[in-house]
Amino acid sequence: MAQQARAIKTRQAILQSAAAVFAERGYERTTIGEILVRAGVTKGALYFHFASKEDLALGVLDAQMLDIPLPPQAIKLQELADQAFLLAHRLQRDALVRASVALALDSGATGVDRVAPFQAWIDQVSEILMVAKARGELLVHVDVTDTASLFSGAFSGVQAMSQILCDRKDLIHRVSVLLQHFMPSICTPALLTGLGLTEEYGRKLGADYDAEWQRRNAANSAETED
Amino acid sequence: MAQQARAIKTRQAILQSAAAVFAERGYERTTIGEILVRAGVTKGALYFHFASKEDLALGVLDAQMLDIPLPPQAIKLQELADQAFLLAHRLQRDALVRASVALALDSGATGVDRVAPFQAWIDQVSEILMVAKARGELLVHVDVTDTASLFSGAFSGVQAMSQILCDRKDLIHRVSVLLQHFMPSICTPALLTGLGLTEEYGRKLGADYDAEWQRRNAANSAETED
Repeated sequence: MAQQARAIKTRQAILQSAAAVFAERGYERTTIGEILVRAGVTKGALYFHFASKEDLALGVLDAQMLDIPLPPQAIKLQELADQAFLLAHRLQRDALVRASVALALDSGATGVDRVAPFQAWIDQVSEILMVAKARGELLVHVDVTDTASLFSGAFSGVQAMSQILCDRKDLIHRVSVLLQHFMPSICTPALLTGLGLTEEYGRKLGADYDAEWQRRNAANSAETED
Repeated sequence: MAQQARAIKTRQAILQSAAAVFAERGYERTTIGEILVRAGVTKGALYFHFASKEDLALGVLDAQMLDIPLPPQAIKLQELADQAFLLAHRLQRDALVRASVALALDSGATGVDRVAPFQAWIDQVSEILMVAKARGELLVHVDVTDTASLFSGAFSGVQAMSQILCDRKDLIHRVSVLLQHFMPSICTPALLTGLGLTEEYGRKLGADYDAEWQRRNAANSAETED
């Protein structure tokens, strides 16, 4: 168990270093050598976890996905809002998540499958929308695929603009504005007032996520020391 | 007059070449030498029009702005939709406009003011929204600045996603979806049905724009030959 925990830690350290070098130099000009130096691991350790630079990029791209599943909500559409708020929160805090999103939008990252992370996110949003539809939460005209693509695309542009204009300082506010413009077009009116879409709601969610993350980390450390 | 027309043509040729090299190599790795070779102009001609690589980038970024003003519409919000449809149309056709948007999103373009093009676009959208508000077209709760930022950010993400997933082939459709989700959240219901937000409307607008552009170009050429 302790060995497995160490392996997970090494993998994470390599990904963090890869993310930092990708962010500084762009994907194309990054070399595995630089990542090795930054991570302070042996070539053997790196290639044990990642077969190539492309493989490292895929590992970084995966970091967009949530490591702690969100709690289910009475209104399914709330889960969509929660995901957006949490991704915004993590973009503000976690260099790996920032590198992940930058890589997906980096037109210099040829040879990396940039379709996959977008498609994975569209699929995730589609799944939530399909459940919401089955529960009668959606207005009748809503096309799940179109709406899922729009939401994913709009979010990625909103965060890019926030990064450029103010280093993502106002991102929770901007995501709240996005949600408040988006939900009335897809959600039945009677449910709208039950949704948490404000900036304050988003901040609380982020704080709760951090607390849960720290709790789990502390529990894992205790286990490793056994 | 003929001399002035030639100067405009040279400037345009340099910008097209700069756009092509930026798009291929990214801003950071582009050299003025490469742009000179591509454009087939002398160093003197290039520096007559542009003082530096940064200056060339600003020229490329300007290409996002419309060269033919849009016709005024009875419903002001229609002009916002028209702008979005036309930018989408030009992104599909014009390498210079594509390079302009790519440059604004290129995180490797350090030293280039990437805030300015975003801010210019937000300002343009804000102006339309303020007129719409004065005319009573907007729902009372609409915050012009927040909504203008959201629209600009969402558009830039939607076009980036369309580029990555299908080389912008479906961009007119995606913009139509964006508008159909966005307008009901800001426009008074009675006006909504009067807006042209369909894909067919967008395609017609693009075709009309091309026709007008060709008409003006033909008129300019005739003038140059005098």
